[in-house]
Amino acid sequence: MRVAVDTQGGDHAPAALVAGALLASERYRIGLTLLGHPDEIEAELAHGRRPTGLDIVAAYRRPDDASALRNPGSAAAKGAQLVRAGAADALVSAADTAVVLAASLRWLGRLAGARRPAIAAAVPTPDAFVLVLDVGANTSCQPAHLVEFAMMGRVFASACMAVDRPRIGLLNIGHEESKGNELVQAAHRSLLEHGFPGYAGFAEPYALASGDVDVLVADGFSGNILVKSMETASSMFATGLRTAFAASWRSRLGYLLARAQVGAVRAKADPGQYGGAALLGINGVVVVAHSGADPEAVCSAVRQARDAHAGSMLERMARGLGETPDIRVRHLGDPPGRTKG
Amino acid sequence: MRVAVDTQGGDHAPAALVAGALLASERYRIGLTLLGHPDEIEAELAHGRRPTGLDIVAAYRRPDDASALRNPGSAAAKGAQLVRAGAADALVSAADTAVVLAASLRWLGRLAGARRPAIAAAVPTPDAFVLVLDVGANTSCQPAHLVEFAMMGRVFASACMAVDRPRIGLLNIGHEESKGNELVQAAHRSLLEHGFPGYAGFAEPYALASGDVDVLVADGFSGNILVKSMETASSMFATGLRTAFAASWRSRLGYLLARAQVGAVRAKADPGQYGGAALLGINGVVVVAHSGADPEAVCSAVRQARDAHAGSMLERMARGLGETPDIRVRHLGDPPGRTKG
Repeated sequence: MRVAVDTQGGDHAPAALVAGALLASERYRIGLTLLGHPDEIEAELAHGRRPTGLDIVAAYRRPDDASALRNPGSAAAKGAQLVRAGAADALVSAADTAVVLAASLRWLGRLAGARRPAIAAAVPTPDAFVLVLDVGANTSCQPAHLVEFAMMGRVFASACMAVDRPRIGLLNIGHEESKGNELVQAAHRSLLEHGFPGYAGFAEPYALASGDVDVLVADGFSGNILVKSMETASSMFATGLRTAFAASWRSRLGYLLARAQVGAVRAKADPGQYGGAALLGINGVVVVAHSGADPEAVCSAVRQARDAHAGSMLERMARGLGETPDIRVRHLGDPPGRTKG
Repeated sequence: MRVAVDTQGGDHAPAALVAGALLASERYRIGLTLLGHPDEIEAELAHGRRPTGLDIVAAYRRPDDASALRNPGSAAAKGAQLVRAGAADALVSAADTAVVLAASLRWLGRLAGARRPAIAAAVPTPDAFVLVLDVGANTSCQPAHLVEFAMMGRVFASACMAVDRPRIGLLNIGHEESKGNELVQAAHRSLLEHGFPGYAGFAEPYALASGDVDVLVADGFSGNILVKSMETASSMFATGLRTAFAASWRSRLGYLLARAQVGAVRAKADPGQYGGAALLGINGVVVVAHSGADPEAVCSAVRQARDAHAGSMLERMARGLGETPDIRVRHLGDPPGRTKG
């Protein structure tokens, strides 16, 4: 397979993107198309071995410029065009998620039946990963959208994360039936009434630690807050540890002895750095890496793209969307009795 | 001053509540009224020195029973009654927040001008604390409520947290003007238009680590998700560390040398365990401790109650509510031009 990697987006572009793509190409034997400024890319390539079959496509403008949202010349847009044309099997970008989403919608479009594409983040947990969606594409949701996210998350978890029968939780501030706002209450009733496969009811953020769910469904506002809050707590914890270890000769010595293990915990505890976020409901495989992604994180995002391709994610998603009963849920704010798709 | 402590609520009741109250009484020379089962309380008191002026008030029924929401005999309700009668200056409880809120609303009522009481949690950050509100009392908010939370948070931060000119952030999924849902967009415009003192614009959860804000305003759903997500990440980080330290003799030895410092970081990183949550907009000082609070956390909640009392929080809050310009914000879903209080 071949992955198109946007080397222009992200805080450490192009170096981290090129290095991460090369890592992935070596580890997983993936063909690479690097999108960006050819001179910059060549300069990065000079550091190491040039993979066979490497393509470089010129795409100069910075895609994180807001005016570039619909810029067909941005690296993200060119990558989406390559995927559409079949010249690449997937796109990986560390540009602003809104930019990648807009480019994907424009050049790849939605899968039939997908009303609202969602961003699905793989959040590392003690045992494995939990897929959280939506984490930012849809800041205002209707109950029907949450039901659709549940369906797309279920397909992705089984197709790309090797989860046999995914357990789906609906993010809420308590697990009791009475908790939450009108949005989660309506989505909950709908998932229960239709016997949604694997639906495990309301789940608090604690479910990520307890391993009770494989997929956590949320509106894009709450999901985004969840992921960023976890990132914040992890980074504060890591900073606190660094300070604590430096406090005395005993603790400094302790750190020297435990350094490797502590570093591994830190790396894993950062959901943003570790996992990429997949765009679901799009007619193409697109993975967004964290803007601060280092080469390992970029490599991990490319691996996710490979897993999605290898797991026939798109075909299974299209089938899933086709088979999902047309769950009609009353729109919030509508008079009772009226439903919309 | 005298604090009424509900010894019936929480996972470690009554032991942790009694022990924590005794700690606070010793450290801060606070008079105590313990509410609960007198025999149980006496059994706990037998372990240590009995403080002078201790009162014990019988209040048997478990307040975390949902049917006890309006139970006037619960320890939380009796505590609120004592505060109302002037027999105690503040109430501390580790019962379910909904129960304590209901008891407080019923027996103490709202401050004049407070439309929506809010739960304000002090989240520990690298430098100090950030006050996050609302963290769960109001799962559906209108823009005007967020403006009111900003005002109450500002008063609390200056009266009880020694913050001179609190910087107020509005929780959002990005700091750019265009980000977020209709709710935060409308509240943002309103805070800007009225030149709200100290308003610093949109803030992501990252602001807790960067120290950019002293108060973070959110609807009760997002605020609750934020606090619980941070708790989850911290606990996963701590668990990961424990496992990592146990991995080899080197890391075990390292842990022994750094144990004290690591323990302090762990304790501080857990927002739920460390800080209590104050009910703002209520006509009385009420602090809710975490349900899993240990004696130190209970003691910390009692200290918060003392700080609120000593800082004349209620008087300042009442004045703040009175002085706040009657910011009228269009209700979401209303036709343009129509405003509500």
